[in-house]
Parts: sequence; structure tokens; C-alpha cells
Amino acid sequence: MSKTDKTDLQIVDLLMEDGRMPAAEIARRVGGISERVVRYRIKRMVSDGLIKISAIANPKKFGRSVIADVVIEVEAGKINEVAQNLAEYENISYVAFSIGENDVSIQVVARNTQEVYRFVTEVVGKIAGVRKTATSIVPEVLKDVYQWKIPESAIVAETEDSE
Amino acid sequence: MSKTDKTDLQIVDLLMEDGRMPAAEIARRVGGISERVVRYRIKRMVSDGLIKISAIANPKKFGRSVIADVVIEVEAGKINEVAQNLAEYENISYVAFSIGENDVSIQVVARNTQEVYRFVTEVVGKIAGVRKTATSIVPEVLKDVYQWKIPESAIVAETEDSE
Amino acid sequence: MSKTDKTDLQIVDLLMEDGRMPAAEIARRVGGISERVVRYRIKRMVSDGLIKISAIANPKKFGRSVIADVVIEVEAGKINEVAQNLAEYENISYVAFSIGENDVSIQVVARNTQEVYRFVTEVVGKIAGVRKTATSIVPEVLKDVYQWKIPESAIVAETEDSE
Amino acid sequence: MSKTDKTDLQIVDLLMEDGRMPAAEIARRVGGISERVVRYRIKRMVSDGLIKISAIANPKKFGRSVIADVVIEVEAGKINEVAQNLAEYENISYVAFSIGENDVSIQVVARNTQEVYRFVTEVVGKIAGVRKTATSIVPEVLKDVYQWKIPESAIVAETEDSE
Amino acid sequence: MSKTDKTDLQIVDLLMEDGRMPAAEIARRVGGISERVVRYRIKRMVSDGLIKISAIANPKKFGRSVIADVVIEVEAGKINEVAQNLAEYENISYVAFSIGENDVSIQVVARNTQEVYRFVTEVVGKIAGVRKTATSIVPEVLKDVYQWKIPESAIVAETEDSE
Amino acid sequence: MSKTDKTDLQIVDLLMEDGRMPAAEIARRVGGISERVVRYRIKRMVSDGLIKISAIANPKKFGRSVIADVVIEVEAGKINEVAQNLAEYENISYVAFSIGENDVSIQVVARNTQEVYRFVTEVVGKIAGVRKTATSIVPEVLKDVYQWKIPESAIVAETEDSE
Amino acid sequence: MSKTDKTDLQIVDLLMEDGRMPAAEIARRVGGISERVVRYRIKRMVSDGLIKISAIANPKKFGRSVIADVVIEVEAGKINEVAQNLAEYENISYVAFSIGENDVSIQVVARNTQEVYRFVTEVVGKIAGVRKTATSIVPEVLKDVYQWKIPESAIVAETEDSE
Amino acid sequence: MSKTDKTDLQIVDLLMEDGRMPAAEIARRVGGISERVVRYRIKRMVSDGLIKISAIANPKKFGRSVIADVVIEVEAGKINEVAQNLAEYENISYVAFSIGENDVSIQVVARNTQEVYRFVTEVVGKIAGVRKTATSIVPEVLKDVYQWKIPESAIVAETEDSE
Repeated sequence: MSKTDKTDLQIVDLLMEDGRMPAAEIARRVGGISERVVRYRIKRMVSDGLIKISAIANPKKFGRSVIADVVIEVEAGKINEVAQNLAEYENISYVAFSIGENDVSIQVVARNTQEVYRFVTEVVGKIAGVRKTATSIVPEVLKDVYQWKIPESAIVAETEDSE
Repeated sequence: MSKTDKTDLQIVDLLMEDGRMPAAEIARRVGGISERVVRYRIKRMVSDGLIKISAIANPKKFGRSVIADVVIEVEAGKINEVAQNLAEYENISYVAFSIGENDVSIQVVARNTQEVYRFVTEVVGKIAGVRKTATSIVPEVLKDVYQWKIPESAIVAETEDSE
Repeated sequence: MSKTDKTDLQIVDLLMEDGRMPAAEIARRVGGISERVVRYRIKRMVSDGLIKISAIANPKKFGRSVIADVVIEVEAGKINEVAQNLAEYENISYVAFSIGENDVSIQVVARNTQEVYRFVTEVVGKIAGVRKTATSIVPEVLKDVYQWKIPESAIVAETEDSE
Repeated sequence: MSKTDKTDLQIVDLLMEDGRMPAAEIARRVGGISERVVRYRIKRMVSDGLIKISAIANPKKFGRSVIADVVIEVEAGKINEVAQNLAEYENISYVAFSIGENDVSIQVVARNTQEVYRFVTEVVGKIAGVRKTATSIVPEVLKDVYQWKIPESAIVAETEDSE
Repeated sequence: MSKTDKTDLQIVDLLMEDGRMPAAEIARRVGGISERVVRYRIKRMVSDGLIKISAIANPKKFGRSVIADVVIEVEAGKINEVAQNLAEYENISYVAFSIGENDVSIQVVARNTQEVYRFVTEVVGKIAGVRKTATSIVPEVLKDVYQWKIPESAIVAETEDSE
Repeated sequence: MSKTDKTDLQIVDLLMEDGRMPAAEIARRVGGISERVVRYRIKRMVSDGLIKISAIANPKKFGRSVIADVVIEVEAGKINEVAQNLAEYENISYVAFSIGENDVSIQVVARNTQEVYRFVTEVVGKIAGVRKTATSIVPEVLKDVYQWKIPESAIVAETEDSE
Repeated sequence: MSKTDKTDLQIVDLLMEDGRMPAAEIARRVGGISERVVRYRIKRMVSDGLIKISAIANPKKFGRSVIADVVIEVEAGKINEVAQNLAEYENISYVAFSIGENDVSIQVVARNTQEVYRFVTEVVGKIAGVRKTATSIVPEVLKDVYQWKIPESAIVAETEDSE
Repeated sequence: MSKTDKTDLQIVDLLMEDGRMPAAEIARRVGGISERVVRYRIKRMVSDGLIKISAIANPKKFGRSVIADVVIEVEAGKINEVAQNLAEYENISYVAFSIGENDVSIQVVARNTQEVYRFVTEVVGKIAGVRKTATSIVPEVLKDVYQWKIPESAIVAETEDSE
């Protein structure tokens, strides 16, 4: 069974800096570990689902300078269907369920506030099962979810992943 | 000046699948493009900030099985300071400003709902300038922000990144 | 007509400690009262509905570690029916009417937050007459309704039980 | 390590009917089990915290004919203190923390609506750290928390009591 | 055209004390005015609609010890009809339109909180056109609308009764 | 001990029509009852507090053409004081406590909407202990509290005036 | 005393089309009226305050492409001061009082949503007396206040300008 | 391509004072500029859409002394249609879309609060697609949108009018 240790965390930290950093460089910067071991550990962490190494596109660089959070109230029994449907849209970057008054939360990326408005009222609002939407513009994201660093206290906890 | 084209998008798509895919394999799968060009294009897109290649850790695999969204009302004039402060916490994975009634939105990852509650009331609630918090548990994320794919319509828009 | 006095309160206090405490022990601890009188008084208080002696199961010990409060808005004229319906579910531990904006309040016990979410959206939300639900997770109960102690000031009031 | 089985559930069901039912009668009604085993099982379930056997007083029979739910917003850092304080009041029958906008939920039992109002505004509202209260009168409780029955599906889950 | 003056106000003040005070006594207490003039002035103020002299029943003395304010959201185009309908109920003591989010406000008098709840959910909630109700119990009325005294500054304004 | 009967109700109905209707006319219209008995019954009902006979001034006829409902959130422990204070204002026609989120409800009569605004923000809002106000204009009152008619079902209930 | 008639309305309509339309052209297009009369009527309507003739700048043409509505809750007794203060800001285009929960409404014009956010949190939020702000982005204005046309039914009403 | 400069701003300022100020007077007051250039610059600014010169009617002078803001929740897919429809009403002076919970904001001008109420409930509320309305009376407008002055910092920005 896979376990993580401090060395894994050091490797992940370097891969958060540059996901394509060569194993040789990682081995050198971590120290006391061979390039082969680095390769093996990365492979294991990826295959065990501990980490994912991925390109992350920056919407602002592709003309999508406005980000909006939208909370959506959905008819009972249509929530899964609506959420799956929303996940397909190319200008929706986030879809999650939420316990509280609203059923589904999404993040929309758009060229400007007019496009947000049109998309929310003309597209999201017309999906069968959507009852109500509430939109807030997000002027700036200071820390994004893919920037979460594994806390040291989590190393030992790694095998208990069931709530 | 850097421009993106359909080839860039194909490269990014492959890097979203596997951020460490060798340039040779990318070249082969895209077709009609050399390994050197792939390397050059990746380097350019990263240095221009169009994309970032990074390891993304999965909190659930590190014992953080509960995710919560928290909206925070902050005293005027303390918003930047509070947001910077929040971004430092290792169990906060997202910090953003929000136009509307609440000033700052965060995402918390925790071992269980008791830990969410204690963190929000004992830590977040005590930061100077925080007036009020509202928490919702997120039982499932269907699509995460780093999964946003660059739409084809965005290729031509790439040079107009100012709102 | 039955009346309660200080002795009754002492008996009830001991029965809140241990509902199966033998009458002999109660008689000894209260003092100046026979075992027979203790038995008679308990019987009378139970038959008059002043108290109920019951086993109370602890949901956390049966894998139900998450408790949630859900307020439910119900279509006029379906409230009684919906409430009766909800009371039948084995993972609903509390059903009450509420004067205000919401018609029915329930408490749900579940294995985890995902189960709460699924139960509220897929089961409660689909009951005919349910219009809207709002859920809050309850991380800890400090004092539960069955721990209410009869105040001394209530002894004389015992015969005026009609509002 | 203690395990529960179907027989335990049958015993608990009978104890919910009458918490003082003699072990001999329980043995007879369950069948195929001795009085001694019943005594042993009850003792074990109580000492393991699976159940509690207790007298439950009926507030209506003691002149407390009005029940009210009150949600209380508390200053950060005073929540534990306020909750402990509230738990001491004899006319408060329930105190719980709540994830969401309000920090503490309580249930008040009172002689009439005037008493509820006076208690909430003059006592609860004046506790240091209490910022705001919202009260709803509860005209009727259909199912109370101590009436929760252990579902059969929970028998196997009994040993996994950590969230 | 009728005008009011200070003498009229003195007469109204005495009639608020006792609506059946004999004209002779009023004349004596006001001073410098004949019984006939008092009669004439009362008659004129009543026929001009400046005042109304009426018995006002005290609901508490007729077993209606609970008062509740209910705000009602009504479907567009049904508001007049719903309001007229509500005004017919003998346990509704007040019906008014309200500019804001809710269309109609009423006051209900009832024997107890259960009756308020049943009346609001089973009767008001079922009137065609009623979409939603929100109820608050009124524990005490300190000053009631029929106790409004005409301010001295209003005497000269009496002829401009159109907004 | 005073009791009400159908005859009392008939008398009250006539006094709601005209509070100064002579006893002789009431006797005649009720029938089978002497003028002396009418006088005695009115006197008894007034002295027992069942009814009050009073002049009711019409604010619209005194230039107060705008009515507004204001709900006021008050600091704990200042509620009685604030309510007593508000009751003194000549343009406040109603003051009541309210169970829910707001502590005190008032009705304001004013010359126009500007005067309502100025009174609420400059006078009510500055009373020590007032935290927040919410105002709604009342364009029309269809049935006023002093028009409540005693229901026949209330006759027998008249002696049980405690909740 | 000045009166308006149908001819005035025709003149105003033409001036809404082009505020600098020569009097001669207006006379010709209205018909049956001399240039001198047109001049006189315009002068009278302006000096009586019936109309104002003004240049109206289009914020979008000056780089202010984002419009936001902000509702501001203000401490009692500081409302006039805060409103006067806000009216001075060059990127605030509208300041009004509002009866309800919020005291002052403003409209902000800005270069982008980031500027709206910064202005509301760093400038508006720091004005002494401002307690809370709520912002909504306005993606499009379909009809603006200066486009209000005088309804024909208003001609006769012109002399009754007091509420 | 048209550019604005400080001289343009001076001209606009004078035209905000009096939209019909003769070009000769503007030239004299600005100084160092001919009447012909003033005429040319005004014409260019109007034809480029930088400014509009228009008569603005004052509703209060035409018997419309009450102004109300109404926020309208509209069914998805009917928003444009509803907004176009609303823009046609002669007593609606403003129609805008709004990002948030409400879809369309309007301003109503009316003779009195009764007329506001009737118009909102009987006309606006009945338009197909309108789900809910919330009205606030505006007692005073301190600065109106047509009073927005072009800030000096906007001169250079004038050519970047796309968001």
C-alpha cells in the first residue's frame, strides 16, 4: 500500500513550481535520492490519485477577463442532470454541489459582464430544472484551488481517505 | 508577439491529460510538428502566462475529505490585509474577492465537519477585520477550475487580455 | 388528580441518571420514602404523561456521525401530510412544525455529508408538496432535548397544562 | 470489541416502549434468549454508549406549553463560552452548534409567548458575545430526537463511529 | 367647509377617554362652550370623517390571547381579491397592502400558537393567489392605532387631505 | 363574575356602528331589553375591559396621508426603554413587540414620503439602542384593528383570558 | 402662472431629439407657431424648472464601460452627510435616498469590475458612517431617466407639484 | 479618429450648465477658440456619441411627485422581452438589467404611493414572465445620472471604449 512521506512532499512542491521539471533536477534539489526513485515516486503518486500533473490554462490570456460565481437553485430530482449538463459548457470552469439553500454552484469565465449576464439568463436560466440563479462578479482570485499545498500534518493521514 | 493557434490548443489538451507527456509523444499525437517545436511552443505558452504546468494535490487523498465554501464580510479598508492573511493558511485552498454583499470567498479543506466549524469560528472569525462568515459544505465537485479547456473561439482573442 | 412535588423531582433526576435504577436504590437515595411509594410514583408519573422512561440510541455509535437540520417550505394544505410522511423515515430523528417562513423543521442523521445531500435533494426534495429546503450541518449538540430538567418553579404549575 | 446484532435492536425497541421493562419480560418477548443475557446486553450497550436509558420529562405537563427555536449569532471566539452558558439555563432544552450563518441553535420552553420574548430579549440577548437572535415558535413536535430508531442497516456499521 | 381648531382637539381627546361622555360634561371640561355646540361639533367631525366613535373589543378578553402579524406574498392580479377575502375572516383584525416584497399584511387573533399555525397554513395558505406567508407572534402591543392623538400641528393642515 | 352573551354582542355591534348611539335606540334595535339594562351592560363591559368606547381620529383628514410600517432591531436590554420612548411620538400610531428577528414594530403617519424618511432616519434611527430599521409604505388599510368583531364562538370563552 | 399645453410637449419632444435644434426649425416642425414664441416658451419652461436642457456625457465613450448599482447602509444621523460626500465623487453618477433597509443608493461608473470593487471597498466603504454596501453590476441600461417623456395626462397636472 | 481634449471638456461643462448656450458665448468663455471651432467640436462630440444634448423633463413639475425603484425577477428567457415591454410605459423612466438575483431594475414616477402600488401590482406584476417585484420609494435624488461630469483622467481613455 502506498504511503507518502516528507520526500514525496518535496517532490510535489517542486512539481507545483514546474510540472515538467526533469526528474534529474528534482533529485538534485531534493538531495539524497536518485532520478529513478523520483520517477517511480511521481508515477506512484499519480497512479494512486494523490496528485495529478496538468496544464492549467489562464482564462484572462484568452480574452476571458471576467469571472463570475453563480449559485443555482434546482428543482428536486433534476440536480444531477442539471449539474452534468452545466459541466459540458466550455465557459463554465467549475461545477459543485452545495449543502444549504442553493443546489449547484458554478464559475463562469466570460469576455465581459454583458456576456456573463447573457449566458446566465439566456443559457443557464433556460436549462430545464433551473429555478433561480444569483450571480456575483469575482474581480480577483488571490489563491486558486490548484495552489493548495499538502500540509505536513497530512502525510500520516494519507491512507484514511474515507470520510 | 505571441499568438495561439489550433496546434497550441492540441498541445494544451494533451498536457491537461498528462502534464509530463514527453515532447516526442506530443509531436507524434498532434502530427506534422517536430519535437523541438513542441518544446518551443510549451516554453513560450508558459513564459507568456497562457498556461502553467503544475502538480495538483488531491485533498481527499490526504485525509481532507470535507470541503466547505465560506463567504466572509470584512470591515472596509481591511479587505486586502484579511485576504492576504487567509491565503497563508494551509487548509484554505481558494481565496477570492467578490462583488456583492460579501467581501471575500474562501474554500476550506478539512478532516470533518467539526474541523470546518472550529476553523471557521476559532480561526477565520477571529482575524481582525472579519465581521461575519457564512459556511456551506460542498459534498462534491463535479468539474474543477483547472479543468477549464480553452474554447476554440478564444484563439483569436488571445492578444486582447485587458478588460 | 395527580400533583408533583419535590420528591417526584428527585425521583425523576435519578431516573435521568439511570432509567433502570432499582426502586430500592431510588428510595434509599431520596430518603424517607419506601420502595413501594417510589414504584407507585414512577407508575403515576408515566401514566399521567409527566415523564416517559425510554432507551435513547446514540446515532454516532451506529455510523451516523453527521447530523443536519433541514427547514422545509411546504405547499399550503400539504403540511400535515408531508410532516407525517417525513416522520416515517428512519434517518429523520426530529419533525416539527414552525411558525415563520418555513413550515416544517427536521433533523437528519447520516453517515457523511454526501449522504445528507443526497437524502435532502433526492428524497426530501421529491416529496409531493415540498417546495424548498435549507440544510445546515450540526457539528455538535451540547445539550439535547431529553436532558431538560424539570425546574422547581414548575412543580406548582403542573396542573395547568393547557395553553 | 462490542458488536450489535438484530437481538440488540429488538431489546432497544422494547426499551424505547418502556425503559423499565423487566429483563424477564424482554427475554420472553424477544424469545430464544435468557434473562441473564438480556441484562448483560443492556449493560454492555449502555456502558459502550450505544444507548442511554433515561426519564424524559414532558415540558407541557409542567406548565411549559410553548416551545421556541432560537438561532443565535455569536461573536467569534465567544461561541464555546456562550454555548456552555446557555446550556445552564433550566428553560433551555437544547443547545447545538450550526454550520452556516448562525453560530448556536437553542430550544426554549416557556409558559407562554410573552415569556419566550422576555427570555430571549432580556436574558439570551444580554449574554456577552451574543450579537443577534431569531426566534420561531414551534406549535407542535411530531417526532422527537429520542424517538430515533436504529435502522437495521446500521448494525454492521456500529464499529465505525469516527467520521 | 369644515375646519378644525383647538376646541375640536380638546373634544376629541375627551372622547378618546370615554366615547360616550355626555356633551354636557364635555362642555364643562372644555369650558367656554355650550353643550349644543359640543353636539354640533361632534356631529360635524363624524360626518366629515375626521373621527369615528366606536366600541373597540379587546380580543384577550374573548379568549384570543395570541396576536400574530402575517405578511403574505400574492400572485399579481389577485391582490385585491385576496385582500377582500381575508378581510371577511372573523379572526383577522387587520388587512393592509404594503409596498415592498410582500403584497398584503394581516393581523390574526387566536386562542393559542397552534391555532395561529393552523389558520395560517390551512386557511390563509390555501386561498387562491396566496404564494407564501411569513408569521411573527406579537407578544405585546404597547400603543394601538386607535390611540393616535391628533397633533396640534395638524389643525391647520386639515383641509389638505389629498396626497 | 361577568359573562358575555349574544345580547352583549348585539350591543357591541351597534356601538361599533355608532359609539354614541343612545341606549334607548340600542334597546329598541336589539329588542326585548330595557334601556336601563343596555346602560348597565355597556357599563359592565367597559369596566371589565371587554370593550372600550372611543373616538378614533382619521390621520388622512389631518394631512397625514402617508402611513408606513417600520420594523426596528434594538440592542438587547434596551427594548422596553426604546418601545416606551417610541410610544411618546405623536406621529407614531402603533408600537408592538415582535418575536422573530426584529424587536419592535411601529406605524408612522406622515404628510408625505419625505417626512417618513426624515423621521425614520433622523429621529427613530438616532434613539439610543436602535440598531437598524426597515420601512414599508402602506398604500391602503382595508380593515383596521378596531374593526375586529367579536366572533360568536368567543362568547363562552370570555372567562379564559390567560394564554 | 405658467401652464403647459400640447404645444409645450411638442417642443420638449423635439428638444429631447436635439437640445440645440434652432427655434426656427422647432417652429416649422410644430407648425402654427412663431420662432419668437418657441424661444419664449423654452425660456419659460427652463426658468420654471419644468425642463432643463443639458449635455449628457456617455461614460462608455470615456473608457467607463462598467456601471454598478451600490446600496449603502448608513449609521443613523450620518445619512445626509454621507450622501453629500458621495455626490462629490467624479465616478459616482447617481446618489439617492431610499426608503427600506438601505439608506443611500448610488451608481458608479468605472473602467472595469476591478475598479468598481476597489472603489466600493477602499473608498465608499471607508467613508465615516457607512456600515455596509451591496453592489450589482448593470450590464445594460435600456432606458435612462433623462429619456422620460412627459405623458399627455400630465399637462393639466402641472400646477400641482406638491405631494 | 476623434479625440477629446481639455477644451472639449470645457465645452461640455458649459453645455451641462445650459444646453442651448450660443457657440459665440461658449467660445468667449473658453477663450482662445473660435465660434466655428466650438460648433464643429459640439457636432463631432454629438455625432461620435460622446455626448447628447437633450431636454430633460422634471417629473415633479408634472404632478409626478413620487419616485420608486422596483427590482423585478423575471423568468429565464423572457428577460429581453419583459424589459422591452417595460420601456414602453410612460411612467417608467428607467429600465436596466442587473447581475445578481434580480433580472430587471426600473424606476417608476407616479402621482402618489397608491399609484405606485397599483401600477406595480396591477400592471408590472401581470406582464407575462414577471415572477416577483420589490419596490422602494425614493424620497429624494441628490445627483442624477445626467449630472455625471467627464473626469479629466478620462480624456486620454476616450478611444478605448470597448470593455
